[in-house]
Amino acid sequence: MQTYASTDKTTLSEEYKKLSDAYAAFKAQGLSLNMARGKPGSEQLNISNDMLTVLTPDTCFKTDDCPDSRNYGNLDGLNMAKKLFGDILGVDQKNVFVGGNSSLNMMFDTIACLMEQGCGDKPWNQQGTIKFLCPAPGYDRHFGVTAYFGIENITVPMTENGPDMDIVEKLVAEDASIKGIWCVPKYSNPQGITYSDETVRRLAALKPVAKDFRIIWDNAYIIHDINGTPDQLLNIFDVIKGTENEDMVLEFCSTSKITFPGAGVAAMAASENNLALLKKRYQFQTIGYDKLNMLRHVLYFKDLDGVLAHMQKHRAVLEPRFKMVTDTLEQELAGLGIAHWTNPNGGYFVSIDVMDGCAKRVVSLCKEAGVVLTGAGATYPYGKDPKDSNIRLAPTYPPVEELEKAMAIFCICVKMAAIEQLTK
Amino acid sequence: MQTYASTDKTTLSEEYKKLSDAYAAFKAQGLSLNMARGKPGSEQLNISNDMLTVLTPDTCFKTDDCPDSRNYGNLDGLNMAKKLFGDILGVDQKNVFVGGNSSLNMMFDTIACLMEQGCGDKPWNQQGTIKFLCPAPGYDRHFGVTAYFGIENITVPMTENGPDMDIVEKLVAEDASIKGIWCVPKYSNPQGITYSDETVRRLAALKPVAKDFRIIWDNAYIIHDINGTPDQLLNIFDVIKGTENEDMVLEFCSTSKITFPGAGVAAMAASENNLALLKKRYQFQTIGYDKLNMLRHVLYFKDLDGVLAHMQKHRAVLEPRFKMVTDTLEQELAGLGIAHWTNPNGGYFVSIDVMDGCAKRVVSLCKEAGVVLTGAGATYPYGKDPKDSNIRLAPTYPPVEELEKAMAIFCICVKMAAIEQLTK
Repeated sequence: MQTYASTDKTTLSEEYKKLSDAYAAFKAQGLSLNMARGKPGSEQLNISNDMLTVLTPDTCFKTDDCPDSRNYGNLDGLNMAKKLFGDILGVDQKNVFVGGNSSLNMMFDTIACLMEQGCGDKPWNQQGTIKFLCPAPGYDRHFGVTAYFGIENITVPMTENGPDMDIVEKLVAEDASIKGIWCVPKYSNPQGITYSDETVRRLAALKPVAKDFRIIWDNAYIIHDINGTPDQLLNIFDVIKGTENEDMVLEFCSTSKITFPGAGVAAMAASENNLALLKKRYQFQTIGYDKLNMLRHVLYFKDLDGVLAHMQKHRAVLEPRFKMVTDTLEQELAGLGIAHWTNPNGGYFVSIDVMDGCAKRVVSLCKEAGVVLTGAGATYPYGKDPKDSNIRLAPTYPPVEELEKAMAIFCICVKMAAIEQLTK
Repeated sequence: MQTYASTDKTTLSEEYKKLSDAYAAFKAQGLSLNMARGKPGSEQLNISNDMLTVLTPDTCFKTDDCPDSRNYGNLDGLNMAKKLFGDILGVDQKNVFVGGNSSLNMMFDTIACLMEQGCGDKPWNQQGTIKFLCPAPGYDRHFGVTAYFGIENITVPMTENGPDMDIVEKLVAEDASIKGIWCVPKYSNPQGITYSDETVRRLAALKPVAKDFRIIWDNAYIIHDINGTPDQLLNIFDVIKGTENEDMVLEFCSTSKITFPGAGVAAMAASENNLALLKKRYQFQTIGYDKLNMLRHVLYFKDLDGVLAHMQKHRAVLEPRFKMVTDTLEQELAGLGIAHWTNPNGGYFVSIDVMDGCAKRVVSLCKEAGVVLTGAGATYPYGKDPKDSNIRLAPTYPPVEELEKAMAIFCICVKMAAIEQLTK
């Protein structure tokens, strides 16, 4: 197949006419489809329904560290929940804090704590303008948290191995106002990239001039494989162990995409120094999180093997969906030279880069035809994609038949936007 | 009976000898009793056990405002939960935000939001030293929140009608750095005092020089009656309605002491302006709280009548405990002129003022005999009771036979400390 760029304008115009007709036909259907949301679909939610009936009046609410998990107390969670999350994260349970239903909230609280208390000589909010590194495309809600606190977000390009480490190393070595970096190290949002061993080692060995620099390691998709060739992520805590960077990493995860997004359990892994620092804040913030939901999860899963078996059920739902999306992209767009995309082994998204300057147009064309996508630019700090090329596709939520239709429309819009760009 | 003050020293010394013998006998038992914790006891926790099995795989998870309550979304909670809390609080559901498991956490987040964003020309944290009024004796965790944020806590004396309003009105009219007041308006912690209608009206009509002054109305015990003569609290939102103070009050409550402290649901009521302000922060902090726990509560209780019927079961457990505590105080200490105490109609505590300068000694004597009380001074800002006289008794948690023994020891210690004071 010939690329669009090497096709003559007359042929492109004819192609555009055909695409427009197909587009108009879809538009006439008055559709309302959504590929914007990184949410599990109903079929996935059903997988965990049996967890709802795990606790009964006959449950033993006494645990090794809590006389009654129905009552107040246990600020950092139940031991048995720490154990389970420790096993998921590959850390000792003494380094785990189990919290509420949202790891985003824990990260928000962590940034707030570092703003107010700091982790060095001075709180972050007493150091004038401070900055955070934002590998992009990345997760808009991460960038939103630092922006909320007035921290300047600095874009760092993503490579196929994770953040561009040459740039990261240079920046943190030069600028003491850079206080941290957002990372989704496995199946990154939106690209599904897993950081290479070298990237993890270089992050673990960073020499920031800011002694109060922190890596926010959001391992949201740590066990969220979607096919038979899962990625392996090096455990950064194993790498920093015994080094001077032992306090540099704070790791987060949750069961939002394991059990229920609306009723999961979130956890954090960190050094004892960091946990002590955070507890200085948490002790005033709450008496403790929902221990019955912790107990519900632990009794339902029993152990790590139980969790992993459960994830295979998610995979069974997600694998064909992702395959359909990447197959459609391959079939409709390969060889045209107008887009490239990721084929992730896990996570919740497929990331596609359309022709520079076309992402907003594609999203807008889709919207007109009744297909809602994540806003163009959302994957970059302040919502500004410098090339206007990245679009995040979320294949998990819509019913399969809707997803198929949405993908057909999406591919038409990508082609139309490309031809508009090439013929203008 | 003669007061200790009017008793001659010889008689007092003889009495002290008898008390010491009784004290020594208790001490020899090697007891470990606890009257410190404002926690429901096991019998109370059992009342709500049937709530655990309300949700099943067959539950309809779709609600009027949420396609699936198992999934992400609904930042401010499910409508049906807002309705239930609105009915409990006596406000329209449009003024309700339903959150996580802890109203303390919601209050903490509210203070954080006001520090960062403010509710006037400038955020609170950009106004130099700011202050908060702390009616005392009061709730130590309230005072802890403002202290954590570096806000100066100012003690305001409690009267039998609530905070001393002459002082409150004078302070807020003089000092623009006073940004708020902590209130537990019904069955206050620890005194069990319900603010009089006049107090509520005067609070509602405050004219603070600080335009960004806020009343934190922690209605923790709003329906927590313990006998047949419950207090009535004027609804402050009814009073401020249509006045220039509509944005001045933020109300909080939770089901921690209705269902499970470890797994309840918290809610907030506020003006639309205030909710919009808080959501500016919450939208970055989380995607939403545990909606399944909201659904669990709503389906279990059905409506306000269901909640009130449930509270009668708590009353049945608590009434005899509180009666035993106040009966013991009456029997052992009345007429001696060495203590006075409250006889609350609800809440979680009995507050006792022992002779000035004796509270620490009483707590210490109790501790030596194996009875843990809330630390003397804990009910005052910075843990400093100027008169060293207030002690908070928490009758709900220990088994009844332990409570009886603890009260016997407590009364002995109050008498011993008083005689020590009078004869030194």
